[in-house]
Amino acid sequence: MQPTNPQASSFRVQDELEEIGRYEDFSTIDWVKDATLERYRQSTTMGHHGQSQTWTEWAKWMFETFQSWIVVCLVGATIGFNSALIAIVTNWLSDIKIGYCSNAWWLNKKFCCWEIDEEHDICELWVPWSDALGLGRDTYIVNWFMYIVTATLFAATCAHMVKTFAPYAAGSGISEIKCIIAGFVMRGFLGGWTLVMKSIGLTMSVASNLSIGKEGPSVHMACCVGNVISRSFQKFRSSKAEMREILTASSAAGVAVAFGSPIGGVLFALEEMSTTFPNRTMWKSFFCAMIATIVLQAMNPFRTGKLVLFQVSYDREWHFFEYVFVIVIGVFGGLYGSVVIKYNLIVAQLRKRYIKDYPVLEATFLAFITAMIAYPNVFLRIDMTEIMGILFRECEGAEGEDYSGLCQINQVARLVFLLFMATIVRTLGTIVTYGARVPCGIFVPSMAIGATFGRMIGLIVKSWHLANPDFFLFSSCRPDMPCITPGTYAFLGAAAALCGVMRITVSVVVIMFELTGQITYILPTMITLMVTRAVADWFGSGGIAERYIRLNGYPFLDNDDHVFGVPVSHVMQNDMVVLTSDGMTLGAIDDMLRKTNFQGFPVVQDTQSMLLLGYIGRTELKYLTNRARKTNNANSNTLCHFRMDASDVEVVTQPPSADDSHVIFGSSESINLGPYIDQTPITVHPQLYLETVMDMFKQLGPRVILLEERGKLVGLVTVKDVLKYIVHMENAENSHEVDSPALGRIMAWVTQRTHSAENTYRRVNTRTSEEAIELQ
Amino acid sequence: MQPTNPQASSFRVQDELEEIGRYEDFSTIDWVKDATLERYRQSTTMGHHGQSQTWTEWAKWMFETFQSWIVVCLVGATIGFNSALIAIVTNWLSDIKIGYCSNAWWLNKKFCCWEIDEEHDICELWVPWSDALGLGRDTYIVNWFMYIVTATLFAATCAHMVKTFAPYAAGSGISEIKCIIAGFVMRGFLGGWTLVMKSIGLTMSVASNLSIGKEGPSVHMACCVGNVISRSFQKFRSSKAEMREILTASSAAGVAVAFGSPIGGVLFALEEMSTTFPNRTMWKSFFCAMIATIVLQAMNPFRTGKLVLFQVSYDREWHFFEYVFVIVIGVFGGLYGSVVIKYNLIVAQLRKRYIKDYPVLEATFLAFITAMIAYPNVFLRIDMTEIMGILFRECEGAEGEDYSGLCQINQVARLVFLLFMATIVRTLGTIVTYGARVPCGIFVPSMAIGATFGRMIGLIVKSWHLANPDFFLFSSCRPDMPCITPGTYAFLGAAAALCGVMRITVSVVVIMFELTGQITYILPTMITLMVTRAVADWFGSGGIAERYIRLNGYPFLDNDDHVFGVPVSHVMQNDMVVLTSDGMTLGAIDDMLRKTNFQGFPVVQDTQSMLLLGYIGRTELKYLTNRARKTNNANSNTLCHFRMDASDVEVVTQPPSADDSHVIFGSSESINLGPYIDQTPITVHPQLYLETVMDMFKQLGPRVILLEERGKLVGLVTVKDVLKYIVHMENAENSHEVDSPALGRIMAWVTQRTHSAENTYRRVNTRTSEEAIELQ
Repeated sequence: MQPTNPQASSFRVQDELEEIGRYEDFSTIDWVKDATLERYRQSTTMGHHGQSQTWTEWAKWMFETFQSWIVVCLVGATIGFNSALIAIVTNWLSDIKIGYCSNAWWLNKKFCCWEIDEEHDICELWVPWSDALGLGRDTYIVNWFMYIVTATLFAATCAHMVKTFAPYAAGSGISEIKCIIAGFVMRGFLGGWTLVMKSIGLTMSVASNLSIGKEGPSVHMACCVGNVISRSFQKFRSSKAEMREILTASSAAGVAVAFGSPIGGVLFALEEMSTTFPNRTMWKSFFCAMIATIVLQAMNPFRTGKLVLFQVSYDREWHFFEYVFVIVIGVFGGLYGSVVIKYNLIVAQLRKRYIKDYPVLEATFLAFITAMIAYPNVFLRIDMTEIMGILFRECEGAEGEDYSGLCQINQVARLVFLLFMATIVRTLGTIVTYGARVPCGIFVPSMAIGATFGRMIGLIVKSWHLANPDFFLFSSCRPDMPCITPGTYAFLGAAAALCGVMRITVSVVVIMFELTGQITYILPTMITLMVTRAVADWFGSGGIAERYIRLNGYPFLDNDDHVFGVPVSHVMQNDMVVLTSDGMTLGAIDDMLRKTNFQGFPVVQDTQSMLLLGYIGRTELKYLTNRARKTNNANSNTLCHFRMDASDVEVVTQPPSADDSHVIFGSSESINLGPYIDQTPITVHPQLYLETVMDMFKQLGPRVILLEERGKLVGLVTVKDVLKYIVHMENAENSHEVDSPALGRIMAWVTQRTHSAENTYRRVNTRTSEEAIELQ
Repeated sequence: MQPTNPQASSFRVQDELEEIGRYEDFSTIDWVKDATLERYRQSTTMGHHGQSQTWTEWAKWMFETFQSWIVVCLVGATIGFNSALIAIVTNWLSDIKIGYCSNAWWLNKKFCCWEIDEEHDICELWVPWSDALGLGRDTYIVNWFMYIVTATLFAATCAHMVKTFAPYAAGSGISEIKCIIAGFVMRGFLGGWTLVMKSIGLTMSVASNLSIGKEGPSVHMACCVGNVISRSFQKFRSSKAEMREILTASSAAGVAVAFGSPIGGVLFALEEMSTTFPNRTMWKSFFCAMIATIVLQAMNPFRTGKLVLFQVSYDREWHFFEYVFVIVIGVFGGLYGSVVIKYNLIVAQLRKRYIKDYPVLEATFLAFITAMIAYPNVFLRIDMTEIMGILFRECEGAEGEDYSGLCQINQVARLVFLLFMATIVRTLGTIVTYGARVPCGIFVPSMAIGATFGRMIGLIVKSWHLANPDFFLFSSCRPDMPCITPGTYAFLGAAAALCGVMRITVSVVVIMFELTGQITYILPTMITLMVTRAVADWFGSGGIAERYIRLNGYPFLDNDDHVFGVPVSHVMQNDMVVLTSDGMTLGAIDDMLRKTNFQGFPVVQDTQSMLLLGYIGRTELKYLTNRARKTNNANSNTLCHFRMDASDVEVVTQPPSADDSHVIFGSSESINLGPYIDQTPITVHPQLYLETVMDMFKQLGPRVILLEERGKLVGLVTVKDVLKYIVHMENAENSHEVDSPALGRIMAWVTQRTHSAENTYRRVNTRTSEEAIELQ
């Protein structure tokens, strides 16, 4: 069922267009057009379905269909493999800070002492640095020193590598991937070089004990894998929608391997990463996360044989009075999220303004300070994932697991102090570290902070109960058995802090359950998250990823409900450069392309009537004029029409046959680009409400919407115009409100950024993104 | 920020319009317009935000904001309460088939024997019917007879009640609710009367041991609760989008209480019920499901104190070779789903054609046959939920729970036969029963069928292993402990069958985990569902709910990717009735309204130029003409303009002040309805691809899309036009393919239905839906 209108021939040229790279860096993808092209491609692949379906066509179709699944499978397996490797290396590097394995230096502490009886808790094969250097047996000060030195070294190496080879490997990457999935083009961000550098850098940055996690970067690496693998296949190179699907599935797999949580990964992709999530995408995400998890489990990097990271089994009943403390934890989560988002954004601004050029120094300094402060506190010294596992545990029934006296009721005061200090110090650490130019995530630090806080609350409640068992609150406790389980409070705290900072809920619940393998406390968890979310949203909506998107000025429409009540004409650009059907010379077109940087141009009948005929993209126009010079011997004086009346087209052109499909309609004196323009751009009435137009951008994803009134073009609007208006309106609001001046300053700065972000990004990364493109 | 264009005044009239009921039965909601109205309402509520925000305005705004949450909370609590009541009554009725409690007739068997020592397994207080009637101690034949009599009686009563009082209470309701959430209006379907009848009827239909479940109806009842409660609030009455949100949240709560699975409910709402699922909706669904679950748990109808329905704890390791059997179970799930969908649809047609008028007789007959066949087979006799709990269990470590010798390895042959028969009989039962005119769901029967099949496979594998422990497949089994856990196979089977019939995946995984409280076997579960889904989709896409939607011809665009490759002009209606700006007399308008049944009319400059000015809905036009007769003393000869040029409006009208806002612009000789027409209908170019237009319908949800070429109206298209085209194309395809003739017949029939479904529905339900409207 091939369309017979003139558009058909233009597709042939457009097939070629894609190969020269249809989308320029830092532009947005036109999803409407992409979908149209993709459907045309499908219909040609399917051939004349129902009329003469031969076996070869069927086989081709089968291959086409299964290709996607093969790619998803490959991507998932690679993500799982990469994640297992990183886990192994990270563990080893983490332990190297404390000592080394005298038997085999490449083993981490756990494997070094694998066969050793754990009862004695001492493993002779593992040598602390003080012993190795001959400075006395387990000397505290020497070990501290070595801890600081190794940690600082890791951070410095990592920052240097990232700066030199792949600046895009710095940070979490979640904000950028959200934008890329929504259709923003950032060349090199998901390239192979970024993948390699992020993988290597991540092992070091995590091992340096900075207050960062590997979950955000895990999503970034997963998407790199998805991108690198799928672009070797023609199908994915040509269809951005297919690519988007693969990237969404990859991000699901990224979370899945980071937490050992396949369903949590799918939900994360759904809740956080993607704005459009059809069933097909969910389905592929499910598959990709599953394969990645299977590979990870098969590689078994932790040698536990389990997918579940922190196996716990809470079998205690939950008491009604405990909901009071659930609310306390929920409020903490909300406050934590708001505080971290607010101050981390301020730090991010300061960083960009003052120390942008010294990323290595910054990371080194941060690692040095963190290591120095962290070492004396046992809850800060060891790896965050490990400490969470310890904090989640129940005390009873687990002999020999009384880590640092965590279950000794006579040490409550010391423990509460340590946990409180750990909460505070790590919060400060997260605020200053997240966003540094090393690979870093905010998931695990937040969870660790929540866990220390939760365990602290749990300990306080437990000792309160033991001191006053007859207090009215504890009347439902049975006297013969332990009533309060501090481990569950740590669990809830971790969930609350994660929700507070990311503003995701359903996926947090599922991730927590998959992480711990228990599902008994589903209601307390849900209530905690309700409270957290309510408190956090009170202080401002949007998780840290969205805030970074706005800070960086990416063209991304968030899901907030804005009510402006103005027609779209308030927002439109009306000083457009338009093409007319009578056309202009090729030279004039070249001139226009050089002088403007619009992504495309509306085509009208004439500037008097402004009767809208269609739209042509900048890249397409450039390609067509170049093609005309080659095939039609056109020169700068060649007249270039844009006529589309059927009769007109027939007069001017020889309809292209299969072999000369690359010839532009016309001769060397005049060519007609009419058939190549998009005759069906999305148009709306200028009086339509802005919100409806925003919905169209969000749901349909066109690059531009033209405003047409009774056939006349009156303006055009892009996502960027809408974003500018939003920032403008919020600024106006803020200036009236008696809000904190800090926020006002941020807003002003954001506005300024929104206009200049693109240029800054280009300037900073010009050299390296060029390198990255070459490496692709 | 009140708009100052003429539309503002039209809102005032439209405020009133809503009160007279803007949407007629069996029409679709225009989401674009609804969103616009809602935003206008919000902006007026917010007042002049940022300019003079007084405390009263702020308080009003707070109330507006919290109102939604209060309503969601109320709805959730009521759903939980209703569900607990139904569970208690159903349990009692189910047991009444076997005997009664001599101590207190209102107790079910479990509570009757609550204090009795379970060791002896005999409870003197519970009297089987044969004893009660003095026909011998536990006489098999008498008990069988009584079982049949009571079951048949329940079914007959239920069918009669449903037929007499609320025909909408029959069936599952999921298909219809999908359409309602998408914007289809069916008055009375979610009314109070339907709720009451469905609640009462459900207890009886489930207790009658028909092969039906209570989960589908639970969703329907939950949505009734949501509708009944929320429409007492002005906010929800006026905004269809708010209502849609409440209904989505209710459906999540419905699944949550049915399975004790709050997160599963949210995912079900996301995956199955709703086509648009913004974060806000997810958030409300989460809250609603949580409240409903809390209330259900607090009421504790099963006296287990747990939310988890079938607590199991699988602690066995999963062996790699078992994936072979996982695939077998997955394939079964896919085949089961396809077979049930295919033949159940045929049965549904036959039912509508031949026995539509004898619903009571049908239900009675089905219950009689089912009861007769089911009683001798222990896996069919008792309640499906109970049998699932038994089948999921591990054999080891659970003394006294060896139900019907399920763990006796010497009885394998008998058990396999019983389980196989149970699978077959219940599948047949489900095929003929689902869709009968009693409240019935397909979730639990499918899961029970899957569980019997899975347990059968598990038993076979287990006995194979015991017979040939040295077979190469079992080499990874450790010799000293049991290797195969048949309970896990039952678990996987239940998941597979549910996925096969509903085609939902992620929510099935989560529901299964929440149902059993264990999460260890996440990978086998995911693999099973992958296989199931792949097999099922091979035989045709879309779950049973979607198929019923098509069978009933509801205006619902599914999420399938259709590739037609035709411009939308292929599909459009071009024999439109249009209004012209010069207008016509009121009499002519009345005439036009009487003679056509279009939902609205485009307004053009004149029929020569066809220059598009706007669009006016049928209901709005009717209201305005009536209003004009009242306030302007207009008569049938009054000329009715549709002029919109600003100058024109000023000449003709006195701008309405606050008090005379109900006066139509104009005098008794001529009125101008121009300001009231929708000047910004969604328009597209007729050459735009049909698929893009379908996306617009799905994503934005307008009722109609006008086709405009250079300002000229050339046609219009509605969802129904698109659906007609899809059916037409599929028919054409099918006639070429060498498919089963049965399917061809179905398709032909579907086509015919699509055109006549609405009328049939109206005819069948006219009397009763009128009653239902009165009851609302």
